[in-house]
Amino acid sequence: MAANRDFDRLRVVLVATRNPLNLGAAARAMSNFGFQHLRAVNPYDLAFREARSAVGAAELLANAEEYRSVVDAIADCTLVVGTTAVRNRELQHKMHALQDGAAVIRRRLRSSRVALLFGSEKTGLSNESLSYCHWLLRIPTREEHPSMNLGQAVAVCLYELARGSAAVSAAKKSQAPAAGVLDRITGELLEALRFSGYLRPTASAASDAKVRRLVRRLDLQGEDAEVWLGMLRQILWKLRMQGSEK
Amino acid sequence: MAANRDFDRLRVVLVATRNPLNLGAAARAMSNFGFQHLRAVNPYDLAFREARSAVGAAELLANAEEYRSVVDAIADCTLVVGTTAVRNRELQHKMHALQDGAAVIRRRLRSSRVALLFGSEKTGLSNESLSYCHWLLRIPTREEHPSMNLGQAVAVCLYELARGSAAVSAAKKSQAPAAGVLDRITGELLEALRFSGYLRPTASAASDAKVRRLVRRLDLQGEDAEVWLGMLRQILWKLRMQGSEK
Repeated sequence: MAANRDFDRLRVVLVATRNPLNLGAAARAMSNFGFQHLRAVNPYDLAFREARSAVGAAELLANAEEYRSVVDAIADCTLVVGTTAVRNRELQHKMHALQDGAAVIRRRLRSSRVALLFGSEKTGLSNESLSYCHWLLRIPTREEHPSMNLGQAVAVCLYELARGSAAVSAAKKSQAPAAGVLDRITGELLEALRFSGYLRPTASAASDAKVRRLVRRLDLQGEDAEVWLGMLRQILWKLRMQGSEK
Repeated sequence: MAANRDFDRLRVVLVATRNPLNLGAAARAMSNFGFQHLRAVNPYDLAFREARSAVGAAELLANAEEYRSVVDAIADCTLVVGTTAVRNRELQHKMHALQDGAAVIRRRLRSSRVALLFGSEKTGLSNESLSYCHWLLRIPTREEHPSMNLGQAVAVCLYELARGSAAVSAAKKSQAPAAGVLDRITGELLEALRFSGYLRPTASAASDAKVRRLVRRLDLQGEDAEVWLGMLRQILWKLRMQGSEK
Protein backbone atom coordinates (compact mmCIF):
# COMPACT_ATOMS: atom_id res chain seq x y z
CA MET A 1 0.00 0.00 0.00
CA ALA A 2 1.44 3.32 -1.01
CA ALA A 3 1.26 6.42 1.13
CA ASN A 4 -1.90 8.25 0.27
CA ARG A 5 -2.21 11.99 0.19
CA ASP A 6 -5.89 11.82 1.09
CA PHE A 7 -4.97 9.98 4.28
CA ASP A 8 -3.04 13.07 5.39
CA ARG A 9 -6.37 14.80 5.81
CA LEU A 10 -7.65 12.43 8.47
CA ARG A 11 -7.40 13.44 12.12
CA VAL A 12 -7.72 10.57 14.55
CA VAL A 13 -9.04 12.15 17.73
CA LEU A 14 -8.81 10.19 20.97
CA VAL A 15 -10.98 11.75 23.66
CA ALA A 16 -10.26 11.27 27.37
CA THR A 17 -8.25 8.12 26.83
CA ARG A 18 -7.35 6.55 30.17
CA ASN A 19 -4.63 4.08 29.33
CA PRO A 20 -1.51 5.43 27.58
CA LEU A 21 -0.98 1.94 26.14
CA ASN A 22 -4.13 2.46 24.13
CA LEU A 23 -2.83 5.75 22.77
CA GLY A 24 0.31 3.89 21.77
CA ALA A 25 -1.68 1.08 20.18
CA ALA A 26 -3.78 3.60 18.26
CA ALA A 27 -0.61 5.30 17.01
CA ARG A 28 0.80 1.97 15.88
CA ALA A 29 -2.33 1.07 13.92
CA MET A 30 -2.33 4.54 12.34
CA SER A 31 1.22 4.04 11.19
CA ASN A 32 0.43 0.54 9.91
CA PHE A 33 -2.35 1.82 7.69
CA GLY A 34 -0.79 5.10 6.62
CA PHE A 35 -2.44 7.75 8.79
CA GLN A 36 -0.18 10.28 10.48
CA HIS A 37 -2.16 12.81 12.47
CA LEU A 38 -3.17 11.96 15.99
CA ARG A 39 -4.92 14.33 18.34
CA ALA A 40 -5.43 13.66 22.03
CA VAL A 41 -8.13 15.48 23.93
CA ASN A 42 -7.55 15.48 27.69
CA PRO A 43 -5.73 12.19 27.95
CA TYR A 44 -5.67 10.91 31.55
CA ASP A 45 -1.97 10.27 31.49
CA LEU A 46 0.09 13.17 30.24
CA ALA A 47 3.05 10.84 29.73
CA PHE A 48 1.19 9.11 26.92
CA ARG A 49 3.89 9.99 24.40
CA GLU A 50 6.12 7.39 26.00
CA ALA A 51 3.67 4.54 25.49
CA ARG A 52 5.66 1.43 24.83
CA SER A 53 2.97 -0.14 22.73
CA ALA A 54 3.59 2.34 19.91
CA VAL A 55 6.16 0.04 18.32
CA GLY A 56 7.38 1.75 15.16
CA ALA A 57 5.18 4.77 15.74
CA ALA A 58 7.17 6.73 18.31
CA GLU A 59 7.51 9.71 16.00
CA LEU A 60 3.82 9.78 15.21
CA LEU A 61 3.09 9.72 18.93
CA ALA A 62 5.67 12.43 19.63
CA ASN A 63 3.99 14.62 17.03
CA ALA A 64 0.52 14.05 18.44
CA GLU A 65 -1.31 17.27 19.17
CA GLU A 66 -2.90 17.81 22.54
CA TYR A 67 -6.18 19.64 23.02
CA ARG A 68 -8.23 20.75 25.98
CA SER A 69 -11.56 20.29 24.28
CA VAL A 70 -13.21 18.44 21.43
CA VAL A 71 -14.35 21.66 19.84
CA ASP A 72 -10.75 22.80 19.43
CA ALA A 73 -9.57 19.41 18.19
CA ILE A 74 -12.08 19.36 15.33
CA ALA A 75 -12.14 23.03 14.42
CA ASP A 76 -10.36 22.61 11.07
CA CYS A 77 -12.36 19.56 9.94
CA THR A 78 -15.39 19.68 7.65
CA LEU A 79 -16.71 16.30 8.70
CA VAL A 80 -16.72 14.98 12.27
CA VAL A 81 -17.50 11.32 12.79
CA GLY A 82 -17.90 9.61 16.16
CA THR A 83 -17.31 5.91 16.66
CA THR A 84 -19.55 3.78 18.80
CA ALA A 85 -20.28 0.18 19.56
CA VAL A 86 -23.84 0.97 20.47
CA ARG A 87 -26.48 0.40 17.87
CA ASN A 88 -28.89 3.06 18.76
CA ARG A 89 -28.07 5.97 20.98
CA GLU A 90 -31.62 7.15 21.42
CA LEU A 91 -31.67 7.83 17.70
CA GLN A 92 -30.17 11.26 18.15
CA HIS A 93 -27.62 10.56 15.49
CA LYS A 94 -27.54 9.22 12.04
CA MET A 95 -25.52 6.03 12.05
CA HIS A 96 -23.48 4.32 9.35
CA ALA A 97 -22.10 0.83 9.53
CA LEU A 98 -18.33 0.92 9.19
CA GLN A 99 -18.23 -0.30 5.62
CA ASP A 100 -20.58 2.37 4.29
CA GLY A 101 -19.36 5.09 6.59
CA ALA A 102 -15.77 4.53 5.51
CA ALA A 103 -16.78 5.11 1.90
CA VAL A 104 -18.33 8.45 2.84
CA ILE A 105 -15.21 9.44 4.78
CA ARG A 106 -12.91 8.48 1.91
CA ARG A 107 -14.87 10.69 -0.47
CA ARG A 108 -14.65 13.63 1.88
CA LEU A 109 -10.92 13.12 2.45
CA ARG A 110 -10.31 13.83 -1.23
CA SER A 111 -10.98 17.50 -0.62
CA SER A 112 -10.99 18.29 3.09
CA ARG A 113 -10.19 17.22 6.62
CA VAL A 114 -12.18 14.65 8.51
CA ALA A 115 -12.05 14.03 12.28
CA LEU A 116 -12.64 10.49 13.50
CA LEU A 117 -13.41 10.46 17.22
CA PHE A 118 -12.85 7.63 19.68
CA GLY A 119 -14.08 7.96 23.27
CA SER A 120 -12.64 6.69 26.53
CA GLU A 121 -12.26 3.00 27.27
CA LYS A 122 -14.92 3.00 29.96
CA THR A 123 -17.66 5.22 28.69
CA GLY A 124 -17.04 5.86 25.02
CA LEU A 125 -17.86 9.32 23.70
CA SER A 126 -19.85 11.54 26.04
CA ASN A 127 -23.07 13.17 24.89
CA GLU A 128 -21.16 16.44 24.85
CA SER A 129 -18.54 14.98 22.47
CA LEU A 130 -21.21 13.30 20.36
CA SER A 131 -22.96 16.61 19.88
CA TYR A 132 -20.07 17.70 17.65
CA CYS A 133 -20.44 14.72 15.36
CA HIS A 134 -22.19 14.82 12.03
CA TRP A 135 -22.93 11.14 12.29
CA LEU A 136 -21.75 7.98 13.99
CA LEU A 137 -19.75 5.07 12.69
CA ARG A 138 -20.67 1.67 14.05
CA ILE A 139 -18.34 -1.30 13.90
CA PRO A 140 -20.52 -4.34 13.18
CA THR A 141 -19.84 -6.39 16.30
CA ARG A 142 -21.90 -9.12 17.86
CA GLU A 143 -24.98 -7.89 19.70
CA GLU A 144 -24.09 -9.84 22.84
CA HIS A 145 -20.63 -8.28 22.98
CA PRO A 146 -20.44 -5.02 21.07
CA SER A 147 -17.80 -3.17 23.06
CA MET A 148 -14.35 -3.29 21.53
CA ASN A 149 -10.91 -2.66 22.94
CA LEU A 150 -9.94 0.89 21.98
CA GLY A 151 -6.74 0.02 20.12
CA GLN A 152 -8.53 -2.72 18.21
CA ALA A 153 -11.43 -0.42 17.32
CA VAL A 154 -8.97 2.12 15.90
CA ALA A 155 -7.18 -0.61 13.94
CA VAL A 156 -10.39 -1.99 12.44
CA CYS A 157 -11.70 1.46 11.43
CA LEU A 158 -8.42 2.47 9.80
CA TYR A 159 -8.11 -0.90 8.08
CA GLU A 160 -11.55 -0.38 6.55
CA LEU A 161 -10.66 3.17 5.50
CA ALA A 162 -7.45 1.97 3.87
CA ARG A 163 -9.12 -1.14 2.47
CA GLY A 164 -11.06 0.65 -0.20
CA SER A 165 -8.15 2.73 -1.33
CA ALA A 166 -5.38 0.16 -1.19
CA ALA A 167 -3.50 -0.29 -4.38
CA VAL A 168 -3.76 -3.67 -5.97
CA SER A 169 -1.79 -6.09 -3.86
CA ALA A 170 1.53 -7.05 -5.27
CA ALA A 171 0.85 -10.76 -5.35
CA LYS A 172 3.26 -12.38 -7.69
CA LYS A 173 1.76 -14.23 -10.56
CA SER A 174 2.56 -17.85 -10.17
CA GLN A 175 3.71 -19.73 -13.18
CA ALA A 176 2.03 -22.93 -14.19
CA PRO A 177 4.35 -25.58 -15.58
CA ALA A 178 4.30 -26.50 -19.23
CA ALA A 179 2.26 -29.53 -20.20
CA GLY A 180 5.48 -31.36 -21.09
CA VAL A 181 6.65 -31.35 -17.50
CA LEU A 182 3.32 -32.73 -16.33
CA ASP A 183 3.61 -35.50 -18.91
CA ARG A 184 7.07 -36.42 -17.68
CA ILE A 185 5.83 -36.46 -14.09
CA THR A 186 2.95 -38.68 -15.14
CA GLY A 187 5.31 -40.99 -17.01
CA GLU A 188 7.72 -41.42 -14.10
CA LEU A 189 4.86 -41.90 -11.68
CA LEU A 190 3.20 -44.55 -13.85
CA GLU A 191 6.41 -46.47 -14.08
CA ALA A 192 6.97 -46.27 -10.33
CA LEU A 193 3.42 -47.49 -9.76
CA ARG A 194 4.02 -50.46 -12.06
CA PHE A 195 7.37 -51.27 -10.47
CA SER A 196 5.85 -51.19 -7.03
CA GLY A 197 2.87 -53.31 -8.00
CA TYR A 198 0.32 -50.56 -7.43
CA LEU A 199 -0.61 -50.90 -11.11
CA ARG A 200 -0.44 -54.20 -12.93
CA PRO A 201 2.03 -54.33 -15.81
CA THR A 202 -0.97 -54.81 -18.08
CA ALA A 203 -2.95 -51.94 -16.62
CA SER A 204 -5.30 -50.36 -19.10
CA ALA A 205 -5.12 -47.03 -20.81
CA ALA A 206 -7.97 -46.03 -18.53
CA SER A 207 -5.77 -46.29 -15.42
CA ASP A 208 -3.09 -44.27 -17.19
CA ALA A 209 -5.63 -41.58 -17.88
CA LYS A 210 -6.76 -41.67 -14.26
CA VAL A 211 -3.21 -41.03 -13.09
CA ARG A 212 -2.76 -38.30 -15.69
CA ARG A 213 -5.84 -36.51 -14.39
CA LEU A 214 -4.65 -36.98 -10.82
CA VAL A 215 -1.38 -35.21 -11.67
CA ARG A 216 -3.21 -32.40 -13.44
CA ARG A 217 -5.40 -31.82 -10.42
CA LEU A 218 -2.33 -31.15 -8.27
CA ASP A 219 -2.26 -27.63 -9.64
CA LEU A 220 1.53 -27.57 -9.49
CA GLN A 221 3.04 -24.10 -9.58
CA GLY A 222 6.40 -22.71 -10.61
CA GLU A 223 9.43 -24.75 -9.72
CA ASP A 224 7.46 -27.27 -7.70
CA ALA A 225 6.83 -29.34 -10.83
CA GLU A 226 10.56 -29.78 -11.43
CA VAL A 227 11.09 -30.70 -7.78
CA TRP A 228 8.43 -33.42 -7.96
CA LEU A 229 9.89 -34.68 -11.20
CA GLY A 230 13.31 -34.93 -9.58
CA MET A 231 11.97 -36.79 -6.58
CA LEU A 232 10.07 -39.26 -8.73
CA ARG A 233 13.09 -39.91 -10.93
CA GLN A 234 15.22 -40.71 -7.93
CA ILE A 235 12.60 -43.02 -6.44
CA LEU A 236 12.15 -44.76 -9.79
CA TRP A 237 15.90 -45.10 -10.24
CA LYS A 238 16.13 -46.80 -6.85
CA LEU A 239 13.22 -49.11 -7.61
CA ARG A 240 14.83 -50.12 -10.88
CA MET A 241 18.29 -50.59 -9.44
CA GLN A 242 17.02 -52.81 -6.65
CA GLY A 243 14.92 -54.74 -9.15
CA SER A 244 17.97 -55.48 -11.33
CA GLU A 245 20.05 -56.58 -8.35
CA LYS A 246 17.83 -59.48 -7.60
CA MET B 1 -24.50 -9.45 13.12
CA ALA B 2 -26.05 -12.75 14.04
CA ALA B 3 -24.09 -15.72 15.33
CA ASN B 4 -22.94 -17.73 12.40
CA ARG B 5 -22.67 -21.47 12.37
CA ASP B 6 -19.83 -21.35 9.87
CA PHE B 7 -17.83 -19.23 12.30
CA ASP B 8 -17.90 -22.14 14.75
CA ARG B 9 -15.56 -23.96 12.38
CA LEU B 10 -12.77 -21.42 12.71
CA ARG B 11 -9.91 -22.15 15.09
CA VAL B 12 -7.85 -19.10 16.00
CA VAL B 13 -4.43 -20.52 16.86
CA LEU B 14 -2.00 -18.30 18.76
CA VAL B 15 1.50 -19.75 18.64
CA ALA B 16 4.09 -18.98 21.31
CA THR B 17 2.34 -15.80 22.43
CA ARG B 18 4.47 -13.95 24.96
CA ASN B 19 2.14 -11.45 26.53
CA PRO B 20 -1.05 -12.80 28.15
CA LEU B 21 -2.65 -9.41 27.53
CA ASN B 22 -2.47 -10.18 23.84
CA LEU B 23 -4.19 -13.52 24.33
CA GLY B 24 -6.88 -11.62 26.20
CA ALA B 25 -7.14 -9.01 23.46
CA ALA B 26 -7.40 -11.75 20.83
CA ALA B 27 -10.17 -13.41 22.84
CA ARG B 28 -12.04 -10.13 23.08
CA ALA B 29 -11.88 -9.48 19.35
CA MET B 30 -13.02 -13.05 18.71
CA SER B 31 -16.04 -12.51 20.90
CA ASN B 32 -16.76 -9.14 19.28
CA PHE B 33 -16.91 -10.70 15.83
CA GLY B 34 -18.55 -14.00 16.74
CA PHE B 35 -15.71 -16.54 16.80
CA GLN B 36 -15.54 -18.86 19.80
CA HIS B 37 -12.69 -21.31 19.49
CA LEU B 38 -9.24 -20.24 20.63
CA ARG B 39 -6.22 -22.51 20.70
CA ALA B 40 -2.94 -21.57 22.36
CA VAL B 41 0.25 -23.37 21.36
CA ASN B 42 2.97 -23.07 24.00
CA PRO B 43 1.98 -19.70 25.42
CA TYR B 44 4.81 -18.15 27.44
CA ASP B 45 2.61 -17.36 30.39
CA LEU B 46 0.54 -20.27 31.56
CA ALA B 47 -1.68 -17.89 33.51
CA PHE B 48 -2.98 -16.48 30.24
CA ARG B 49 -6.56 -17.42 31.09
CA GLU B 50 -6.65 -14.63 33.64
CA ALA B 51 -5.76 -11.91 31.14
CA ARG B 52 -7.58 -8.78 32.17
CA SER B 53 -7.81 -7.44 28.66
CA ALA B 54 -10.36 -10.10 27.72
CA VAL B 55 -13.23 -7.83 28.72
CA GLY B 56 -16.45 -9.71 28.03
CA ALA B 57 -14.57 -12.78 26.79
CA ALA B 58 -13.54 -14.46 30.03
CA GLU B 59 -15.49 -17.61 29.21
CA LEU B 60 -14.01 -17.87 25.73
CA LEU B 61 -10.56 -17.58 27.25
CA ALA B 62 -11.35 -20.13 29.97
CA ASN B 63 -12.41 -22.56 27.24
CA ALA B 64 -9.27 -22.00 25.17
CA GLU B 65 -7.49 -25.24 24.33
CA GLU B 66 -3.80 -25.57 25.00
CA TYR B 67 -1.44 -27.49 22.74
CA ARG B 68 2.19 -28.45 22.84
CA SER B 69 2.72 -28.26 19.08
CA VAL B 70 1.27 -26.68 15.98
CA VAL B 71 0.77 -30.07 14.36
CA ASP B 72 -1.62 -31.11 17.15
CA ALA B 73 -3.43 -27.78 17.17
CA ILE B 74 -4.32 -28.01 13.47
CA ALA B 75 -4.85 -31.76 13.09
CA ASP B 76 -8.63 -31.51 12.62
CA CYS B 77 -8.52 -28.59 10.18
CA THR B 78 -8.64 -28.95 6.40
CA LEU B 79 -7.16 -25.54 5.71
CA VAL B 80 -4.30 -24.01 7.66
CA VAL B 81 -3.58 -20.33 7.07
CA GLY B 82 -0.68 -18.38 8.55
CA THR B 83 -0.76 -14.64 9.05
CA THR B 84 2.20 -12.46 8.27
CA ALA B 85 3.12 -8.86 7.84
CA VAL B 86 5.92 -9.76 5.49
CA ARG B 87 5.28 -9.42 1.81
CA ASN B 88 7.56 -12.02 0.50
CA ARG B 89 9.02 -14.78 2.59
CA GLU B 90 11.39 -16.05 -0.04
CA LEU B 91 8.33 -16.95 -2.09
CA GLN B 92 8.04 -20.30 -0.40
CA HIS B 93 4.36 -19.74 0.21
CA LYS B 94 1.42 -18.67 -1.78
CA MET B 95 0.18 -15.41 -0.31
CA HIS B 96 -3.28 -13.84 -0.29
CA ALA B 97 -4.05 -10.28 0.69
CA LEU B 98 -6.50 -10.25 3.59
CA GLN B 99 -9.53 -9.32 1.52
CA ASP B 100 -9.14 -12.17 -0.98
CA GLY B 101 -7.85 -14.66 1.54
CA ALA B 102 -10.82 -14.06 3.83
CA ALA B 103 -13.16 -14.94 0.96
CA VAL B 104 -11.37 -18.25 0.48
CA ILE B 105 -11.53 -18.98 4.21
CA ARG B 106 -15.23 -18.17 4.37
CA ARG B 107 -15.98 -20.60 1.57
CA ARG B 108 -14.05 -23.34 3.30
CA LEU B 109 -15.78 -22.67 6.63
CA ARG B 110 -19.08 -23.67 5.08
CA SER B 111 -18.03 -27.28 5.11
CA SER B 112 -14.98 -27.80 7.30
CA ARG B 113 -12.60 -26.44 9.90
CA VAL B 114 -10.01 -23.79 9.20
CA ALA B 115 -7.06 -22.89 11.42
CA LEU B 116 -5.88 -19.28 11.39
CA LEU B 117 -2.38 -19.02 12.87
CA PHE B 118 -0.82 -15.99 14.53
CA GLY B 119 2.83 -16.08 15.60
CA SER B 120 4.59 -14.55 18.56
CA GLU B 121 4.81 -10.80 19.04
CA LYS B 122 8.54 -10.67 18.44
CA THR B 123 9.19 -13.05 15.62
CA GLY B 124 5.86 -13.97 14.07
CA LEU B 125 5.43 -17.54 12.88
CA SER B 126 8.58 -19.66 12.74
CA ASN B 127 9.55 -21.45 9.54
CA GLU B 128 8.56 -24.66 11.26
CA SER B 129 5.07 -23.32 11.97
CA LEU B 130 4.81 -21.86 8.48
CA SER B 131 5.56 -25.23 6.95
CA TYR B 132 2.15 -26.46 8.16
CA CYS B 133 0.35 -23.66 6.37
CA HIS B 134 -1.36 -24.06 3.02
CA TRP B 135 -0.89 -20.38 2.32
CA LEU B 136 -0.32 -17.06 4.04
CA LEU B 137 -2.64 -14.19 4.73
CA ARG B 138 -1.15 -10.73 4.51
CA ILE B 139 -2.75 -7.70 6.10
CA PRO B 140 -2.19 -4.83 3.67
CA THR B 141 -0.14 -2.53 5.87
CA ARG B 142 2.23 0.23 4.90
CA GLU B 143 5.52 -0.97 3.52
CA GLU B 144 7.50 1.23 5.91
CA HIS B 145 5.70 -0.17 8.94
CA PRO B 146 4.17 -3.56 8.23
CA SER B 147 4.36 -5.15 11.66
CA MET B 148 1.11 -5.00 13.60
CA ASN B 149 0.30 -5.40 17.26
CA LEU B 150 -0.92 -8.98 17.75
CA GLY B 151 -4.31 -8.13 19.24
CA GLN B 152 -4.94 -5.60 16.48
CA ALA B 153 -3.93 -8.07 13.78
CA VAL B 154 -6.40 -10.61 15.14
CA ALA B 155 -9.14 -7.97 15.29
CA VAL B 156 -8.56 -6.83 11.71
CA CYS B 157 -8.49 -10.38 10.32
CA LEU B 158 -11.67 -11.39 12.13
CA TYR B 159 -13.39 -8.16 11.14
CA GLU B 160 -12.63 -8.91 7.49
CA LEU B 161 -13.83 -12.50 7.88
CA ALA B 162 -17.09 -11.35 9.46
CA ARG B 163 -17.43 -8.45 7.05
CA GLY B 164 -18.27 -10.49 4.02
CA SER B 165 -20.14 -13.25 5.80
CA ALA B 166 -23.50 -11.91 4.81
CA ALA B 167 -22.63 -11.91 1.15
CA VAL B 168 -23.84 -14.92 -0.74
CA SER B 169 -21.38 -16.57 -3.00
CA ALA B 170 -22.20 -19.63 -5.03
CA ALA B 171 -18.84 -21.32 -4.83
CA LYS B 172 -18.85 -25.05 -5.08
CA LYS B 173 -18.16 -26.98 -1.95
CA SER B 174 -14.87 -28.75 -2.25
CA GLN B 175 -13.68 -31.25 0.25
CA ALA B 176 -10.19 -30.75 1.45
CA PRO B 177 -8.37 -33.43 3.36
CA ALA B 178 -7.72 -33.01 7.07
CA ALA B 179 -4.23 -31.91 8.03
CA GLY B 180 -3.63 -35.40 9.44
CA VAL B 181 -3.81 -36.96 5.98
CA LEU B 182 -1.36 -34.44 4.62
CA ASP B 183 0.97 -35.30 7.47
CA ARG B 184 0.79 -38.99 6.60
CA ILE B 185 1.47 -38.23 2.95
CA THR B 186 4.44 -36.12 3.97
CA GLY B 187 5.73 -38.89 6.23
CA GLU B 188 5.54 -41.59 3.56
CA LEU B 189 7.09 -39.30 0.99
CA LEU B 190 9.97 -38.38 3.28
CA GLU B 191 10.71 -42.00 3.94
CA ALA B 192 10.61 -42.84 0.23
CA LEU B 193 12.97 -39.95 -0.45
CA ARG B 194 15.40 -41.24 2.18
CA PHE B 195 15.19 -44.81 0.92
CA SER B 196 15.87 -43.69 -2.62
CA GLY B 197 18.77 -41.47 -1.64
CA TYR B 198 17.03 -38.25 -2.69
CA LEU B 199 17.39 -37.10 0.90
CA ARG B 200 20.32 -38.13 3.04
CA PRO B 201 19.44 -40.20 6.09
CA THR B 202 20.73 -37.28 8.12
CA ALA B 203 18.74 -34.66 6.24
CA SER B 204 17.90 -31.68 8.39
CA ALA B 205 14.58 -30.56 9.79
CA ALA B 206 14.75 -27.82 7.16
CA SER B 207 14.46 -30.32 4.32
CA ASP B 208 11.57 -31.98 6.11
CA ALA B 209 9.86 -28.62 6.35
CA LYS B 210 10.53 -28.01 2.65
CA VAL B 211 8.83 -31.27 1.73
CA ARG B 212 5.95 -30.50 4.08
CA ARG B 213 5.38 -27.19 2.33
CA LEU B 214 5.64 -28.88 -1.06
CA VAL B 215 2.84 -31.28 -0.10
CA ARG B 216 0.69 -28.44 1.26
CA ARG B 217 1.03 -26.55 -1.99
CA LEU B 218 -0.46 -29.46 -3.93
CA ASP B 219 -3.90 -28.26 -2.90
CA LEU B 220 -5.19 -31.84 -2.81
CA GLN B 221 -8.95 -32.16 -2.99
CA GLY B 222 -11.46 -34.82 -2.02
CA GLU B 223 -10.38 -38.41 -2.40
CA ASP B 224 -7.19 -37.54 -4.24
CA ALA B 225 -5.32 -37.26 -0.95
CA GLU B 226 -6.17 -40.86 -0.06
CA VAL B 227 -5.19 -42.03 -3.54
CA TRP B 228 -1.79 -40.35 -3.28
CA LEU B 229 -1.32 -41.81 0.18
CA GLY B 230 -2.09 -45.28 -1.16
CA MET B 231 0.35 -44.91 -4.07
CA LEU B 232 3.13 -43.68 -1.82
CA ARG B 233 2.56 -46.52 0.63
CA GLN B 234 2.84 -49.08 -2.12
CA ILE B 235 6.01 -47.51 -3.53
CA LEU B 236 7.54 -47.29 -0.08
CA TRP B 237 6.61 -50.91 0.66
CA LYS B 238 8.38 -52.00 -2.51
CA LEU B 239 11.45 -49.91 -1.75
CA ARG B 240 11.63 -51.42 1.71
CA MET B 241 11.05 -54.97 0.55
CA GLN B 242 13.76 -54.77 -2.06
CA GLY B 243 16.07 -53.14 0.46
CA SER B 244 15.64 -56.06 2.86
CA GLU B 245 16.17 -58.67 0.13
CA LYS B 246 19.70 -57.59 -0.54
